[in-house]
Amino acid sequence: MRDKVSIGLLGLGVVGSGVIKLIENHQEKLVHQLGCEVSVKSVLVRSLDKTRNVEVDRTFLTTNPDDIINDPEIDVIVEVMGGIEETYQYILNAFANKKHVVTANKDLVALYGTNLEAAARKNKCDFYYEASVAGGIPILRGIADGLSSDRIQKVMGIVNGTTNYILTKMSNEGFSYLDALKEAQELGFAEADPTADVEGLDAARKMAILGRLAFSTDVALEDVEVTGIKSLELEDLQYGDKFGYAMKLIGYAQSKDHQIEVSVQPTLLSKEHPLADVKNEYNAVYVYGEAVGETMFYGPGAGSLPTATAVVSDLVTVIKNMRLGVSGTHSLEARFKKELRSADQRSGQYYLRIHVKDRVGAFSEISTLFNDLEISFKRILQTPIKKRESAEIILVTHQTSLDNFQHALDQLKKLEVVLQLKSYYKVEGDAAYELAGTTKTLS
Amino acid sequence: MRDKVSIGLLGLGVVGSGVIKLIENHQEKLVHQLGCEVSVKSVLVRSLDKTRNVEVDRTFLTTNPDDIINDPEIDVIVEVMGGIEETYQYILNAFANKKHVVTANKDLVALYGTNLEAAARKNKCDFYYEASVAGGIPILRGIADGLSSDRIQKVMGIVNGTTNYILTKMSNEGFSYLDALKEAQELGFAEADPTADVEGLDAARKMAILGRLAFSTDVALEDVEVTGIKSLELEDLQYGDKFGYAMKLIGYAQSKDHQIEVSVQPTLLSKEHPLADVKNEYNAVYVYGEAVGETMFYGPGAGSLPTATAVVSDLVTVIKNMRLGVSGTHSLEARFKKELRSADQRSGQYYLRIHVKDRVGAFSEISTLFNDLEISFKRILQTPIKKRESAEIILVTHQTSLDNFQHALDQLKKLEVVLQLKSYYKVEGDAAYELAGTTKTLS
Repeated sequence: MRDKVSIGLLGLGVVGSGVIKLIENHQEKLVHQLGCEVSVKSVLVRSLDKTRNVEVDRTFLTTNPDDIINDPEIDVIVEVMGGIEETYQYILNAFANKKHVVTANKDLVALYGTNLEAAARKNKCDFYYEASVAGGIPILRGIADGLSSDRIQKVMGIVNGTTNYILTKMSNEGFSYLDALKEAQELGFAEADPTADVEGLDAARKMAILGRLAFSTDVALEDVEVTGIKSLELEDLQYGDKFGYAMKLIGYAQSKDHQIEVSVQPTLLSKEHPLADVKNEYNAVYVYGEAVGETMFYGPGAGSLPTATAVVSDLVTVIKNMRLGVSGTHSLEARFKKELRSADQRSGQYYLRIHVKDRVGAFSEISTLFNDLEISFKRILQTPIKKRESAEIILVTHQTSLDNFQHALDQLKKLEVVLQLKSYYKVEGDAAYELAGTTKTLS
Repeated sequence: MRDKVSIGLLGLGVVGSGVIKLIENHQEKLVHQLGCEVSVKSVLVRSLDKTRNVEVDRTFLTTNPDDIINDPEIDVIVEVMGGIEETYQYILNAFANKKHVVTANKDLVALYGTNLEAAARKNKCDFYYEASVAGGIPILRGIADGLSSDRIQKVMGIVNGTTNYILTKMSNEGFSYLDALKEAQELGFAEADPTADVEGLDAARKMAILGRLAFSTDVALEDVEVTGIKSLELEDLQYGDKFGYAMKLIGYAQSKDHQIEVSVQPTLLSKEHPLADVKNEYNAVYVYGEAVGETMFYGPGAGSLPTATAVVSDLVTVIKNMRLGVSGTHSLEARFKKELRSADQRSGQYYLRIHVKDRVGAFSEISTLFNDLEISFKRILQTPIKKRESAEIILVTHQTSLDNFQHALDQLKKLEVVLQLKSYYKVEGDAAYELAGTTKTLS
């Protein structure tokens, strides 16, 4: 057995520099845990001459991936370069060369995770990707190991720090969406092109990965229904607040009788729900297990050192497995054939805001429409709109099927009394404690 | 290799019945994860005739521990009987017979954990005890695996559900301590004899275990300084609330330069701190790592199935290790000699409530006393007390050493103007984001 494990690092950006710092600063702890030294042997970079915020001997750098992937002395590849197709090939080649791989690349794992697990298994290699979901929070292990004996029914996540920061600003300080986005960009919590974040795609990738692990089925990225936060209006956050809800971009992965649904959508979340208190750029993942009930894992969803912590913890696991001779035995293979729930099988509570003509019987028409569809209301608020002969109606429904609710929306739009259907959002957490199989009530 | 793993269960109470239910209900998942069947072969009980809330074939029951500990067909002992000295002997004997052990027994692990780890190591056996701390929350793995690459600086825990339930009732509904305790007892959240909970001993046991894992040093139960909640007065919760603090029984384990302090004490926690929102009987453990920053693990701290989830997840790990031939390789051995921090090395913020004579210059005398000790105030509130010639003064200090603060208390009591020192509590979370090494600020 080697008395030293050599790492090849693909990428030396924000996370890559963090990985190098952690391996250097915590060498003593690593040696104690692993009984061997760990060192970074080579690093793939785009340019040899760039100034970096970590000291790396220039002789370690290379611009040729083959220098790393084909180096027989390198045991583990740590991929923190990002990108998809090219990176996918590098990792497949690494497995073919019997190298273990740790990655932080959510785009890649969301798209090709299942194939990569299979390639790792075939080559008896380890493949770990804790850092791909919720940065420094050890949530994948939490699900795979900590709750391994339970049957997970529901995962809800605030898994995108940018949008959570924006929503916190809107809620707490009354910022508009655009002003909040601008501030997030100035503080470095949002990128110059925030599309993937604000349209929910980044969160969708993480939910696909979480759904796969939680339900042992091959959730594909295109299975995730996605709605972003770009069209959110402050009014809806304020009405929500008045009713006891916080607006959050929530990723859902739910399973019932092995039929699953995975989505990302702006949600009015009961302030009693543990996720409602997650503020600013923080992430959290709420897991509801049949036996354990409610658990939540909270922490930083991004950042150089938090993400590097997850990468190096994976690395510790990989090296332990190597030294114990059990590499490649932990790969995840789906137990269940994927079956998605249809709209009539999915139920929820919904908030909607409608502008109607301000005349006698207006509300009665709307109420009749919902009544005919057997949708009842939990909350109703009607207020006149100044200087116009119209009124604003806010409704929160009780549980109904998604199918039925969509039907109601279609019919609403056709009513002559309805001027505009302003917005509608999922409502969650009112019934968090009434989940299948439990009669527990919390005050 | 056996195609079936046999378990011996010591105890068939609340947790034991949960373990049996989980193993039966999740057999298919266990077989998939482990590639073998798992079954409970014998169960140690006090009486063979007791009615139980789980169906167990009577032929599986025994009142003789040797039937289990000496049974060569039993691979793993699950200890959920409680007790200390006798149980300790059973487990030592189990290790001597090369059986792996999973326990939920915090009293035992807090007292003899270090010895038991050593005995397991010596016999190449596994020893896991996730359920001993915070029931269903996978916090021990979170620290040992998920944050394995980080250097943990601080652990803060709400690790006793009974006291958190009582404090929630007092805060939210204005109950007195005694009324809240009574309600907790009626609902089954507090035992008939609540001493170990309300005096903080139960929390202290868990903090000793957490401190050991977080700092890799042999924290003993007697190293934990403990203050319970029995003498809490509602007034202090209400003043705290007014100042933006929630009263919580917080377990602390902190390390600086490998000098540690571990304590359990009622604390006024900033409402901005993630632990401040943990309500009712829920538990949560907040971990501050040098690299990862703030993380928190939240969930049920007790209960049959949540605790059984942690036990069976440990069992899954033990059986995986058996099948991979790596049993006994994960034991925890302290890396650092224990060194406790002295009172002058410990600093904090403090709240205090004093009754003084209501006369000119009263506050000035007190203010001079603190000023001479270089303790400055963050908040001051003085209100007259009706129908008495006295006034109540509430102070919240800035950071000062514990030593210095105790010195101030001694001098205060001697002041002629001071009628009574009513109470004092630690204040936490104002400076949570100013921890060593980070300049991060959160709004």
